[in-house]
Amino acid sequence: MDTDTPWTLYLAPGTCAQAVHIALCEAAVPLRLIKLNLAGGQQHTPEYLALNPLGRVPALVTSQGTLVETPALLAFVAQSCPAARLGPVDDAFAWARVQAFNSYLASTVHVAHAHKHRGVRWSDDPASWEAMKAKVGANMREAFALIGRDWWQGPWVFGEQYTVADPYLYTIGEWLEGDGVDTAAFPWLLEHRERMRARPAVQQARATLEALA
Amino acid sequence: MDTDTPWTLYLAPGTCAQAVHIALCEAAVPLRLIKLNLAGGQQHTPEYLALNPLGRVPALVTSQGTLVETPALLAFVAQSCPAARLGPVDDAFAWARVQAFNSYLASTVHVAHAHKHRGVRWSDDPASWEAMKAKVGANMREAFALIGRDWWQGPWVFGEQYTVADPYLYTIGEWLEGDGVDTAAFPWLLEHRERMRARPAVQQARATLEALA
Repeated sequence: MDTDTPWTLYLAPGTCAQAVHIALCEAAVPLRLIKLNLAGGQQHTPEYLALNPLGRVPALVTSQGTLVETPALLAFVAQSCPAARLGPVDDAFAWARVQAFNSYLASTVHVAHAHKHRGVRWSDDPASWEAMKAKVGANMREAFALIGRDWWQGPWVFGEQYTVADPYLYTIGEWLEGDGVDTAAFPWLLEHRERMRARPAVQQARATLEALA
Repeated sequence: MDTDTPWTLYLAPGTCAQAVHIALCEAAVPLRLIKLNLAGGQQHTPEYLALNPLGRVPALVTSQGTLVETPALLAFVAQSCPAARLGPVDDAFAWARVQAFNSYLASTVHVAHAHKHRGVRWSDDPASWEAMKAKVGANMREAFALIGRDWWQGPWVFGEQYTVADPYLYTIGEWLEGDGVDTAAFPWLLEHRERMRARPAVQQARATLEALA
């Protein structure tokens, strides 16, 4: 990794970019942060669309070019910063399990959550947006029940080794209360949340984001 | 890789499992195939849910355990069968680009397509399912326009090197006509489709699937 030129992470509060931010703090990567105001549409400026044509965060600008998509960014941080031990990147099977978990979070769980405010992506009928919104809580509850039953090992997602699955689970898990899910049903998740908040990297990620204008 | 025990791939015609099947054929992995009848609900039997609690294909049973989620499976095949050269797995940046593309296909493009028949995942109101269905063609068209503009290099997705992005693009691209998209607007995609169909691995994947009861 080229540490002469800091990488630049584009992010916004309350988004899955937090997972990548935490992973980069875990790896102690020199980082420049640029906070986008999503409500103000800063993700749709021509300058930003040139970096990420999808108009979403996160995007990471490295000395080699720009990378997007949270699961790919998490894998990139783990693979390019092996000293941080953010996943079993050299064990194809164990690593595929981590990647499968992250893919499930991205393609199923994040997508379930997105139906709360982004119904317009999938329908032009406002009545249907309300119908989608009404099912978000149930879908998120079901997804986290499945995670607790079929994936969770503890104290981290994959047992004793902390991986990039942990900041991703932590980040999406923080959306549950806003989605109307009673997280008391998931004590393992609340304990994981506290364990995450005790990590210096998580505190650093929060502090550096809050310090931005 | 342990070649004494063949891996078992659970798949179904017309699904994204084809991408994984092709990748495994490219890598010449000894393989047992089990075709599930999705219309008959074979993905919801207790036996299959024990392998993949999501009740979806693909699932790959290896000597080390079971793996799910198409992007993770594609990365696993590329990483565990390096001789097949299915992606720049040792170049963190180049590999992250491939993974980002596959993540986009899984989280955005496949999800856009799924709103045609799987609206019940995101809403309990039948009227909204029709509204979702009505937007599938436009969303798929927009996604492939973006791929052609921002990702596609040719003759393969990432230029001269064939990667696991290619069978995934090919597989999802085959859904376009059924989604009401005029693929004549994407000549690069139709040429890629022909290039894919000329590959022995693609022909082998099709023949071995068709040979199953």
